[in-house]
Amino acid sequence: MAHMIRDIAAALGAQAAGNLDLTVTGAAEPQVAGPQDLALAMDPKYAGGIGQGKARAAVVWQGADWQALGLEAAIFAPRSRVAMAGLTAILDAGPQIAPGVHPMAVVDPTAQIGEGAAIAPFVVIGAGVILGPRARIASHVSIAEGARIGADALILQGARIGARVSIGDRFICQPGAVIGADGFSFVTPEQSGVEEIRATLGHREEIRQQSWTRIHSLGAVTIGDDVEIGANACVDRGTIRDTLVGSGTKLDNLVHLGHNVQVGRDCLLCGQVGVAGSTKIGDRVVLAGQVGVSDNIFVGDDVIAGGGTKILSNAPAGRVLLGYPAVKMETQMEINKALRRLPRLAATVAELQKLVSKL
Amino acid sequence: MAHMIRDIAAALGAQAAGNLDLTVTGAAEPQVAGPQDLALAMDPKYAGGIGQGKARAAVVWQGADWQALGLEAAIFAPRSRVAMAGLTAILDAGPQIAPGVHPMAVVDPTAQIGEGAAIAPFVVIGAGVILGPRARIASHVSIAEGARIGADALILQGARIGARVSIGDRFICQPGAVIGADGFSFVTPEQSGVEEIRATLGHREEIRQQSWTRIHSLGAVTIGDDVEIGANACVDRGTIRDTLVGSGTKLDNLVHLGHNVQVGRDCLLCGQVGVAGSTKIGDRVVLAGQVGVSDNIFVGDDVIAGGGTKILSNAPAGRVLLGYPAVKMETQMEINKALRRLPRLAATVAELQKLVSKL
Amino acid sequence: MAHMIRDIAAALGAQAAGNLDLTVTGAAEPQVAGPQDLALAMDPKYAGGIGQGKARAAVVWQGADWQALGLEAAIFAPRSRVAMAGLTAILDAGPQIAPGVHPMAVVDPTAQIGEGAAIAPFVVIGAGVILGPRARIASHVSIAEGARIGADALILQGARIGARVSIGDRFICQPGAVIGADGFSFVTPEQSGVEEIRATLGHREEIRQQSWTRIHSLGAVTIGDDVEIGANACVDRGTIRDTLVGSGTKLDNLVHLGHNVQVGRDCLLCGQVGVAGSTKIGDRVVLAGQVGVSDNIFVGDDVIAGGGTKILSNAPAGRVLLGYPAVKMETQMEINKALRRLPRLAATVAELQKLVSKL
Repeated sequence: MAHMIRDIAAALGAQAAGNLDLTVTGAAEPQVAGPQDLALAMDPKYAGGIGQGKARAAVVWQGADWQALGLEAAIFAPRSRVAMAGLTAILDAGPQIAPGVHPMAVVDPTAQIGEGAAIAPFVVIGAGVILGPRARIASHVSIAEGARIGADALILQGARIGARVSIGDRFICQPGAVIGADGFSFVTPEQSGVEEIRATLGHREEIRQQSWTRIHSLGAVTIGDDVEIGANACVDRGTIRDTLVGSGTKLDNLVHLGHNVQVGRDCLLCGQVGVAGSTKIGDRVVLAGQVGVSDNIFVGDDVIAGGGTKILSNAPAGRVLLGYPAVKMETQMEINKALRRLPRLAATVAELQKLVSKL
Repeated sequence: MAHMIRDIAAALGAQAAGNLDLTVTGAAEPQVAGPQDLALAMDPKYAGGIGQGKARAAVVWQGADWQALGLEAAIFAPRSRVAMAGLTAILDAGPQIAPGVHPMAVVDPTAQIGEGAAIAPFVVIGAGVILGPRARIASHVSIAEGARIGADALILQGARIGARVSIGDRFICQPGAVIGADGFSFVTPEQSGVEEIRATLGHREEIRQQSWTRIHSLGAVTIGDDVEIGANACVDRGTIRDTLVGSGTKLDNLVHLGHNVQVGRDCLLCGQVGVAGSTKIGDRVVLAGQVGVSDNIFVGDDVIAGGGTKILSNAPAGRVLLGYPAVKMETQMEINKALRRLPRLAATVAELQKLVSKL
Repeated sequence: MAHMIRDIAAALGAQAAGNLDLTVTGAAEPQVAGPQDLALAMDPKYAGGIGQGKARAAVVWQGADWQALGLEAAIFAPRSRVAMAGLTAILDAGPQIAPGVHPMAVVDPTAQIGEGAAIAPFVVIGAGVILGPRARIASHVSIAEGARIGADALILQGARIGARVSIGDRFICQPGAVIGADGFSFVTPEQSGVEEIRATLGHREEIRQQSWTRIHSLGAVTIGDDVEIGANACVDRGTIRDTLVGSGTKLDNLVHLGHNVQVGRDCLLCGQVGVAGSTKIGDRVVLAGQVGVSDNIFVGDDVIAGGGTKILSNAPAGRVLLGYPAVKMETQMEINKALRRLPRLAATVAELQKLVSKL
């Protein structure tokens, strides 16, 4: 689809110059851009690339001499990544899903499908489901009985929405995500070894042979507005109450949220993050890739944890964390520095011991 | 579905008092319980909540004065999490799957489907599959040729059971799990860098440019009775013999078991645990979230490993582990304490050096 | 399917002896092999097992006295794992997928399906897809609009190939893998806390309440020849250009590649490895299980990282890494040794302090 430079600039709230009626159909890095592409050159380091490519229009840095760069039109980006958000939203055609319900979809007659829905082949929608207007449901998705999903949902291939799950507006679900699997909750007839070592921090009096009985999950999952869930991510249902994901929160691929977890608003949980059962995560928390969070603890508002951090105890609001176990990032940096010198330190101490014993 | 307090108490083997003919249809936390809910108040801290909610009956702690709490009936829980297991099993309606084989399922004529099966739309069952009685197979599941599954299986949406996989009774499989993908096993024509550094612990004589040839997986997966597999978890087939998962073992979401792995009985492998190829895990082992276990080692019976532990070498039976690399949990606690003081320790040693050199 | 010992030896380029017309239909460990199995006994330690089993033929170590072992025929393996690769390839029957397009598959009329394809039930193939000859597409797979896949692809149950993804020849995709989900890329209107702490390494001036705006993914994924992707693994699309996976590279189960990542040729990324956005991985890199790699860094050619390593900064070519944060494996081994003695070291230093202060 073709877009005029004028319209793109207006949508971005950005200044533009040159032939504002010029149209583009896509975006590209400057050096590989074709004549129908908008080159993305938000930094002076891309200046050379514009000459190598064939773009006639570009998004350029503030103050760029676009005419000297050989362009016919230019849009001036105020903050480059913000401009990218607007630009890519305009140029993203989205998945092709034909309007209406495909004849090879199985929709329960008691389900309510909102206006303007597009439902692909091999979708299953269960009894009593309520699906808001303009939903786009890709192939192989299942939405189980009693689930409710707000307006403008985009649910991609093979995602699983469990029974009685409740989701707000503008939900985006990547392929293969599972919302509402049963929680992982098991109990032994008498105290288990896990319960014992949690109390003793490692010591065991005796080892009993016991097997596990399942605690079923009667709760569901409640998700706010503007949430995105990554590919093959998993959000388990709660035991009695619902597992919660607040509005504006985004989960990346392969993230795992255990049963009863509560995640606040506007959080980012990056690839392969895991949060164990009944833990509470505040608002605007950012957990980088492969972070793990123990069960039954809380992580305060605005916490940021670096890649691979394992949060094993409560974290106060605003704390920046790193390491296993998680400590303040600044502290961990000091520890890491000292660790690299640790073998040398040990040698120094041995040397000192000798010297002192002589004295 | 409504249940009498009398019947719930009997099923739990618990004492009850008050109007035992009262019925409930679900369970809830005390403060949000409605008149049809059984409030869950197994601890005195929930006493206040009962007054805030509308429950007429509750599961209460031993010795609770249920009449003073305003209840019409009470069940006394001996061990609260055990009671939860019984209770939630009674109240869990389970997924809605219509009895019989849905017309939009593709079942090979040579497959044997046990009595009382419920098979949802878009299920594929291959040649020679044997599926025990009362199986409930949710939508989009595939069960490949020659797989055998025991009685009372519950296999949820989009789970994949591979060819010739063999599974016992009462199997529960969460959505998206993959049982029987090919193992990750590749070989180079000459010794690879990985083989070399395993021998030298890090040193490389020369770097060869080689590519990888696939070792196919001729084995399958054998799973015992009463096993549960989490959402999007993966259990690979063995190379020649089968990968094994013992009876009573539970795998959480996104767990990965490599080819030829053997897991014993009554183990718990929590979210995102990974076990590399050919490793043997004993009975009653508990691996907390994000634990990793190297290939070709063994982990003894009754081992417990805390969250994020990386087990890089054999672990004796009964050991409680923590850390990367895994050491005894008590040792790791000591190390962690010392680590936080490490930068200070280094400064102290520097100070001492100065002092001693003056002496 | 039966294979003559003569033919297997020829395919392996190996010497054989005895009755070369003998046929086998499978392979097995010596002690459990039946009369139709080829016993795998590439090491003298398996000699006893041959007597326990019923195999008439075996792959044996160089110089084995096969007649004394009671065999009728023997193949001599030069390098055992290489022999395994050849052998298992011969004996792997592969998945059963009927030739042609199943009537319950939905194939867009504009898609081009190569000769000799086998497409299973409930497959969806979108507009403009180009699928090479001899493709085997298992049930529930989706291949979205504009994707191009080379010759001899094997795509297993429920795998997701996204729009405009481009893949070379001999592609193998395990069940549930997602190639081409949207990248995880979000921006705040003003500088975010994450951007701030990256600059300050942990310090924050003030905490702003901001929400996240999505950067859409306009790029796709380009994959070379001879690539294999593991079960439930995820490879995200690029923002503007494509995410890249080089020829000969293999990804294991539950691996995550973020948007814009570039992985070179002949790499092995083992189970649950995660690579964050825009990072560049060289050729022949081996990342063991649960390795994590930060965003926007590079990992040089021939790097090997041990299990659980977290690579947080650029890694030069040929480096062997271990630990969190990653350091040279040899260094990490030294650090680990010193760590186990750290509590004792701290006590020694305290002791020294006392002694020195007396002096």
